Amino acid sequence: MILEDLGLRIKQLRAREGLSQESLALKIGMDRSYLASIEVGGRNVSLLNLKKLADGLNVSLSELFEDL
Amino acid sequence: MILEDLGLRIKQLRAREGLSQESLALKIGMDRSYLASIEVGGRNVSLLNLKKLADGLNVSLSELFEDL
Repeated sequence: MILEDLGLRIKQLRAREGLSQESLALKIGMDRSYLASIEVGGRNVSLLNLKKLADGLNVSLSELFEDL
Repeated sequence: MILEDLGLRIKQLRAREGLSQESLALKIGMDRSYLASIEVGGRNVSLLNLKKLADGLNVSLSELFEDL
């Protein structure tokens, strides 16, 4: 399901960037516990937050969703 | 801005598919006026609705966001 798939993708990209949840959340101005709930597929994330996440992970939105 | 850019992309893809707002909205179970507001950049669309739109327009989420 897309929420879980996106959560896993964000977790993988975050690890690739060597960022903790804390540091990514701080970088993009998002609450850490909200980011944690996104990573476990628990949030129907909005486009503006998706864009913040993509920017914070140094990928385009298209790359964020590649093969999902 | 991403909301406007996405709205324009959806409008272009919808035209490519030869779908009216009414028929796309019906196809994906979305309110027509809500779709209309998305197309003018007026909505911070959620991931589940983005997935419905991509499916209804016969593209992947990655394609939906290509070059945005």
